[in-house]
Amino acid sequence: MQDLRIGIIGVGVMGADHAERVVRRISGARLVAISDPDLPRATALAESLGEIRVIEDPLALVGDPSVDAVIIASPGFAHAEQLMACLENAKPVLCEKPLTMDTESSLRVVEAEHKLGRQLIQVGFMRRFDPEYAALKQLLDSGELGRTLLLHNVHRNKTVSASFRSEMIVRDSLVHEVDVARWLFDDEIARITVHAPKPTGLVAEGVLDPQFAVFEMASGAIADVEVFVNFQVGYEVRCEAVAEKGSATIGLGVDVLTRRGGQWGGVVPEDYRARFGTAYDIEVQRWVDATARGEIDGPTAWDGYAAAAVCTAGVQSLQEGRPVEVELARKSEVLG
Amino acid sequence: MQDLRIGIIGVGVMGADHAERVVRRISGARLVAISDPDLPRATALAESLGEIRVIEDPLALVGDPSVDAVIIASPGFAHAEQLMACLENAKPVLCEKPLTMDTESSLRVVEAEHKLGRQLIQVGFMRRFDPEYAALKQLLDSGELGRTLLLHNVHRNKTVSASFRSEMIVRDSLVHEVDVARWLFDDEIARITVHAPKPTGLVAEGVLDPQFAVFEMASGAIADVEVFVNFQVGYEVRCEAVAEKGSATIGLGVDVLTRRGGQWGGVVPEDYRARFGTAYDIEVQRWVDATARGEIDGPTAWDGYAAAAVCTAGVQSLQEGRPVEVELARKSEVLG
Amino acid sequence: MQDLRIGIIGVGVMGADHAERVVRRISGARLVAISDPDLPRATALAESLGEIRVIEDPLALVGDPSVDAVIIASPGFAHAEQLMACLENAKPVLCEKPLTMDTESSLRVVEAEHKLGRQLIQVGFMRRFDPEYAALKQLLDSGELGRTLLLHNVHRNKTVSASFRSEMIVRDSLVHEVDVARWLFDDEIARITVHAPKPTGLVAEGVLDPQFAVFEMASGAIADVEVFVNFQVGYEVRCEAVAEKGSATIGLGVDVLTRRGGQWGGVVPEDYRARFGTAYDIEVQRWVDATARGEIDGPTAWDGYAAAAVCTAGVQSLQEGRPVEVELARKSEVLG
Amino acid sequence: MQDLRIGIIGVGVMGADHAERVVRRISGARLVAISDPDLPRATALAESLGEIRVIEDPLALVGDPSVDAVIIASPGFAHAEQLMACLENAKPVLCEKPLTMDTESSLRVVEAEHKLGRQLIQVGFMRRFDPEYAALKQLLDSGELGRTLLLHNVHRNKTVSASFRSEMIVRDSLVHEVDVARWLFDDEIARITVHAPKPTGLVAEGVLDPQFAVFEMASGAIADVEVFVNFQVGYEVRCEAVAEKGSATIGLGVDVLTRRGGQWGGVVPEDYRARFGTAYDIEVQRWVDATARGEIDGPTAWDGYAAAAVCTAGVQSLQEGRPVEVELARKSEVLG
Repeated sequence: MQDLRIGIIGVGVMGADHAERVVRRISGARLVAISDPDLPRATALAESLGEIRVIEDPLALVGDPSVDAVIIASPGFAHAEQLMACLENAKPVLCEKPLTMDTESSLRVVEAEHKLGRQLIQVGFMRRFDPEYAALKQLLDSGELGRTLLLHNVHRNKTVSASFRSEMIVRDSLVHEVDVARWLFDDEIARITVHAPKPTGLVAEGVLDPQFAVFEMASGAIADVEVFVNFQVGYEVRCEAVAEKGSATIGLGVDVLTRRGGQWGGVVPEDYRARFGTAYDIEVQRWVDATARGEIDGPTAWDGYAAAAVCTAGVQSLQEGRPVEVELARKSEVLG
Repeated sequence: MQDLRIGIIGVGVMGADHAERVVRRISGARLVAISDPDLPRATALAESLGEIRVIEDPLALVGDPSVDAVIIASPGFAHAEQLMACLENAKPVLCEKPLTMDTESSLRVVEAEHKLGRQLIQVGFMRRFDPEYAALKQLLDSGELGRTLLLHNVHRNKTVSASFRSEMIVRDSLVHEVDVARWLFDDEIARITVHAPKPTGLVAEGVLDPQFAVFEMASGAIADVEVFVNFQVGYEVRCEAVAEKGSATIGLGVDVLTRRGGQWGGVVPEDYRARFGTAYDIEVQRWVDATARGEIDGPTAWDGYAAAAVCTAGVQSLQEGRPVEVELARKSEVLG
Repeated sequence: MQDLRIGIIGVGVMGADHAERVVRRISGARLVAISDPDLPRATALAESLGEIRVIEDPLALVGDPSVDAVIIASPGFAHAEQLMACLENAKPVLCEKPLTMDTESSLRVVEAEHKLGRQLIQVGFMRRFDPEYAALKQLLDSGELGRTLLLHNVHRNKTVSASFRSEMIVRDSLVHEVDVARWLFDDEIARITVHAPKPTGLVAEGVLDPQFAVFEMASGAIADVEVFVNFQVGYEVRCEAVAEKGSATIGLGVDVLTRRGGQWGGVVPEDYRARFGTAYDIEVQRWVDATARGEIDGPTAWDGYAAAAVCTAGVQSLQEGRPVEVELARKSEVLG
Repeated sequence: MQDLRIGIIGVGVMGADHAERVVRRISGARLVAISDPDLPRATALAESLGEIRVIEDPLALVGDPSVDAVIIASPGFAHAEQLMACLENAKPVLCEKPLTMDTESSLRVVEAEHKLGRQLIQVGFMRRFDPEYAALKQLLDSGELGRTLLLHNVHRNKTVSASFRSEMIVRDSLVHEVDVARWLFDDEIARITVHAPKPTGLVAEGVLDPQFAVFEMASGAIADVEVFVNFQVGYEVRCEAVAEKGSATIGLGVDVLTRRGGQWGGVVPEDYRARFGTAYDIEVQRWVDATARGEIDGPTAWDGYAAAAVCTAGVQSLQEGRPVEVELARKSEVLG
């Protein structure tokens, strides 16, 4: 199967992350082109990542026949035009949020895609792909806890730049919980209240931070969200779903923490694949990368030999019921 | 850069996992050949994964010019010969533990590689690549907690097959902690005691499970290990390192839990990349895979539009200090 | 010093608990009288606890010269009259919440006490005495986390009786968080919104459970509260305070869990008194109780002897670097 | 019922704690006499606690007819003689560990008590009264987890005085785990190994700290113990019991944390008594203490009134589906 040839529009922090991701960690895809108004930045990135073309005009990148699919990581105001170009060129596109800057232009994009008769656009609400959120969704959909009644969300950043205004807290931060609530409840938000409590003293005068929002879903369920973008401590995203027979929380760093049947707690992995699957992925990726450089980046044959010597002594200790000395060749004599 | 062309010897549970890993999740590598005495199994796997050659003789796979590097996942008794073939063919090899079945043959492999003048062998002690173990190693090496004095290890499986004998607990399970102790202390094990306490009643007569081992390191530090391969609950691997100024534990599912400076606890991620980096990787990998199939596997343009409508109402609520109804086009009217 | 002689009005669940508490666990006080409309219940309790008088008329109990102080645990509608009687008789009183059933009568009680020129009434908002809430209050008041901006509260009961109506969720459950918010913020609540989301299906038709309340404090801070009195799982009370430089949560069973300075976590006790103070209290109370019965209810002299024998062998092992057998007299020979 | 009249021998740190405990927190007991070689210390303590006699000769205290029962908190070398005096005077005694300083004298005490035909001695192994250890014991004895196979213990102090020698780590610290292992397994320790790993650099030359002990029980079960008395971080005592069908850990600050049936976690309290029982005890004790001083030490009538006003507004908000302002009298007008 041919690798998917990807072009990325916008290589600021997010776009550059995506570029490195496609080159170094994604299987079945190849980065072929990038576009950014900051040409030196684009050129430097393209060179650091290998043979990547820089195409100055983002619409030209979309139309280029060497590009199979597009990632849009440009500023929000540019999205509408770039998305329309993707639709015109029938190119699948992964578009960072927001879809566009306002409701009307977003609706026009939806209508244009619908008219095309084929879905090409995916929006970058990446919470849905977080293993914890995905496990929470699966648990709620299983019905084990009964119907979901409430969501409590916390969304905290360490700090944001001084230019971050109160409205951006809604549009750039709260928007993630908007999607989370819609997705977890599988329902639309009918009414929203955003409270602006007494602001922290650690922001510019006039910035309303933290904010506290209440979503009333069409079905009558409720979600609340604290957004606090100058929390000082670090980045923290939590979600607790309260259902008829229990609750489940993610974002504590322990996967899904449930309260049900008189118990709080989590799941013990079934086997080594559940626990160490990522470790195996990393092991093999690093071995592949090191091998390409002609190097070893992991335990060596000596480590294998030393382990064998210890285990042999261990079996003897088990059989004889006493401490056993480990016999090991002198490393300097063997390896010179 | 050319993809690394990989051949895998042995496609039982572990080898088949590696095969799928290389095909679906590893960047910069391609699976080109597999070998297994169970020919139908190898053929079925090769077909399910795309255009993979099946080479009956494992030594022929090692020697094949289309294979750049080898993963050995065959039974331990076959390792010595296959490793020697890799050395003769100058092929880099990732060999599942154990290196070989006994101390002497392991030493011969070490010597043969040393004679070659180039390191080609990496052993599959994949704990070193687990993000939690790696973070623990980094913390201990930083010296922040002073010198490491003790390691407490727990290694539990849910159950093992009835054929699992007492010695295998040492050779196949304890061996991981042997490597962990050597690696974390950067020291050899000088003496080992394996205690066989009263066995659980849930194993075959005569099997000594759990076992409890004490490692005395050359430097005088101590590591202890509980291995319990019929724990019934699930799979659990824990390691607590006790140092002069505090301790650090991994395997609790909360990364590194430290006790230092009068506090127990962990680290709040600095930013969204630390918290959601994996979610972005999954998002893009799934988008690439779905795009190759001509599908969407994530939030759609409608989701982007609905979020825009809610945020617009949210900004209005923030400005007016009251609940605001969300205006949304009727989905059925827009999407037909 | 003379023991405080206490009379209790109302010996339902709460009053009977208080009666047993005063008799068995409180130092410096003695229960001398109880009063309850259910005379057989009062008589049975009085007999089970020792020499306690039953006084049928609660106002007579208040006026009785043998009663120094009163605990009111009668239904709320009776509080106003009984409190007024306590004021008239100048008797200190601990009154279970609510003070009275409505705002006006509560204000009259406040005014009557004020006119008396001496504070006699304490209200049973016992959250303030919970060690976790007390530690949270102390932390917030210390200013270490900066000013407090938000409180997130959760208040869940396993189930309540079918007669529990929607208003009672506000008056009997939410009232605790009303006091918690006033106390932690040291501020009055200026505005309240009580949301009634889609109710759980596990309550009688028409009962609004769970409820979700937002308190806007006079200073502009905000507290939110989930009250869910048919949560099915068990009893759960949590409070997270969000301040300018971090947050602190209680009710997780780990004392105060903080997030600050890039870390989440809690406090390691300074010494054995912080960790085992309660154990010592229980040890001595149970020893006193058993001694009064002429019994032993704890480790015996034999346990002391056996420990001495093991420690002696342990010191020998430490000195000689080898396992040492423990020499113990045969218990049956020594104790017959 | 008459209060038990208690005499305490030795009022150093531990004895003074016991004295305050008996006076302030224990119901049904009264402290009547104390004895200590440091007469000024004893006198000062006696005066601070009320009308307590100081009896210079500890044996005279034991024999004094005003003393019903004795607590021994003197240095270990004095225990044997004082215990014998208690037996001669038929006085119940709670003796801090160790029973005596060596195995032989401990056995003589056991024999003397046995000859008397009545148990009078309780040893201060107070771990058995810690609610977490007690819950662990109950869980293990219930058989829910099958037979107990292993115990992992950790015992850490922040620091100890420079005079603390290696043997004292066994006799004064490890001794607690000796009793814990005997009690939890209900079995004697047959063999002990005390390992002295590389010591921490933060102790005096020659002190072996930490130490690591392995107990082999008569039944074949095993317990291991880390004792580290200069851990720097704080005081930490943990115990994990590993049984045939799961494990249970205490000392994490979350009561009993179990791993069983594929889950890790703890218990959600059944009701408010389980969660807030201690808060009620503290509330009433502090109310009694404050009332004796003619003071209020808790929520006032005003707090009760303010809560009533908020709840009334809350019920209105619930009924009308909108925010409601809270009407509160001006505090300064009401209370002057």
